[in-house]
Amino acid sequence: MKGQGPPWVVGVDIGGTNLRVGRVPLEGGAPPVAVRRCHTRAASGSDRVLDRIVTMIRESVTDVGRENVAGIGLGAPGPLDTESGVVAETPNLGWRDYPLRDLVAEACGMPATLDNDANCFTYGEWWMGAGRGCRRLVGITLGTGIGGGIVIDGEIHRGASGGAGEVGHMSVDFRGRRCPCGARGCVEAYASGPAIAARAIEAIPDGGDSVLASIVDGDLGEITAEIVCAAATAGDRHAEGVLRDTARILATAVANLIHLLNPDAVVIGGGVANAGERLLRPLRREVRGRVFGTHMRACRIVRSELGDSAGVIGAAGVFRRAHLCRPR
Amino acid sequence: MKGQGPPWVVGVDIGGTNLRVGRVPLEGGAPPVAVRRCHTRAASGSDRVLDRIVTMIRESVTDVGRENVAGIGLGAPGPLDTESGVVAETPNLGWRDYPLRDLVAEACGMPATLDNDANCFTYGEWWMGAGRGCRRLVGITLGTGIGGGIVIDGEIHRGASGGAGEVGHMSVDFRGRRCPCGARGCVEAYASGPAIAARAIEAIPDGGDSVLASIVDGDLGEITAEIVCAAATAGDRHAEGVLRDTARILATAVANLIHLLNPDAVVIGGGVANAGERLLRPLRREVRGRVFGTHMRACRIVRSELGDSAGVIGAAGVFRRAHLCRPR
Repeated sequence: MKGQGPPWVVGVDIGGTNLRVGRVPLEGGAPPVAVRRCHTRAASGSDRVLDRIVTMIRESVTDVGRENVAGIGLGAPGPLDTESGVVAETPNLGWRDYPLRDLVAEACGMPATLDNDANCFTYGEWWMGAGRGCRRLVGITLGTGIGGGIVIDGEIHRGASGGAGEVGHMSVDFRGRRCPCGARGCVEAYASGPAIAARAIEAIPDGGDSVLASIVDGDLGEITAEIVCAAATAGDRHAEGVLRDTARILATAVANLIHLLNPDAVVIGGGVANAGERLLRPLRREVRGRVFGTHMRACRIVRSELGDSAGVIGAAGVFRRAHLCRPR
Repeated sequence: MKGQGPPWVVGVDIGGTNLRVGRVPLEGGAPPVAVRRCHTRAASGSDRVLDRIVTMIRESVTDVGRENVAGIGLGAPGPLDTESGVVAETPNLGWRDYPLRDLVAEACGMPATLDNDANCFTYGEWWMGAGRGCRRLVGITLGTGIGGGIVIDGEIHRGASGGAGEVGHMSVDFRGRRCPCGARGCVEAYASGPAIAARAIEAIPDGGDSVLASIVDGDLGEITAEIVCAAATAGDRHAEGVLRDTARILATAVANLIHLLNPDAVVIGGGVANAGERLLRPLRREVRGRVFGTHMRACRIVRSELGDSAGVIGAAGVFRRAHLCRPR
């Protein structure tokens, strides 16, 4: 680190549903971040979304004074190009070949970086969360989609075209369920939030002896992964079965990651991870049955420590790494 | 590299069937290696195997004079510990907690390193073969088992307990075929040499209209992956079907690797890779249908250039990296 630079970086986590912006201190242990949140309101158009991002950053900067902020780290859904700072395509947000990094940097008058949201999640957990001290860390975000990131020796492994860490499109059944990406058996086609809901709906017994249908008054389209979790917690066997299968399928993907990368930890976050130990306990059990003992003993499988702030902290961390760390 | 050190390293590739030993020049482009081969004859006992290894190394050293050899790189089937140079367990060779590296070093009077055979294969291809110049390389060996290695920025990614790169135990069907490792759907349970033969035998139609059965005079136990390939080349539809399925299953694993690591190249070697384009062409086609275009355009899927010598060259390369390269 430079000796006497500004003490803060602003981290921005741009999601399809929420925008999160927070100031992250460059030094110091725990993550004392003031994270603000607002709805992305993607339907209002890409310029409006950009305006909202810039406004939130400015507020965050004003609070401590410009001279105390080194720059801005942005995390956004991919595919995107880290080098040029351009979002190639984000259907949810209506961006296409959108030079997000430079637009934000110009509007705010300070340098910025851009990286993939799942990379930011993983880097955040490595820097200040459940993956602290890990030489090899894999992060998985379970939400509307399934994302992933790999941090090795403190560096995000981005790959040849910046697309590494696509855990969601790891296939766990070569003849399996069709994924919107075109392939078969992708873990995202089973274990993303919408996929969990879809599997629960498909499998509702004809007789209808699941509380799921009654929770939504028969309007099956209203079933979400959250409702499936709630029903399982309430003891509904059908919902329990769906969660058990989800754990088994996720475990296959996690076991594959462990065989391949032999990491020190796998950190799991995102909305679906709010199911907590109800999901993680059977997942760990299944992984243990699949991987070699030496791999398993070397690897913790844990829930995100930073929760909703992981993306903000990680985005700030990526800026710090790019602009403020000495080259090794 | 040191300026004026000895110009050679001896590389040793210890397989269940063959031992290969060769001198590898530390500098210079093409791999002009004199590789000698003998049968491992594992049944003769572990001491005899060690004797044979040491004898072959000595012959290789004598040819150029001791003063011209910097040391010995050993590659052996795992699991093994690179740091301590101990083979934890190799059922084929009867070794258990066997301090192979130090025994060889002492007997030959020069320093040695020990690494996993699939890591050596991949490192060899990165150093002098099909993976030259790749910042991120994945190697896959298709033989009696399926192994793998990952080289990132010129370093083997070994993982937290030295077990990274276990491509063979990536599951491509979470409910699939039982693997001897205990898990289900491991790619090794479908696409190793013995697994290809087993699948071909299982699927021989009751009527017996496959030339496979007649090639082995009805003794189905004699069917090997090589015979399946030969029958497919001769136009046998049943054998063609088995190879097609093999390509599809391997492609799922390769696509998973590409999604996860976004490498510059995947290099495929080992006995089963001798099927060449008959296997690689449908494999590439299937991978293309599974991965994102950006990932695919960044990645070549190619056959080993070094063939049977890759393990010898890679083992020598690992020694060179450990003992002769300047720390970065």
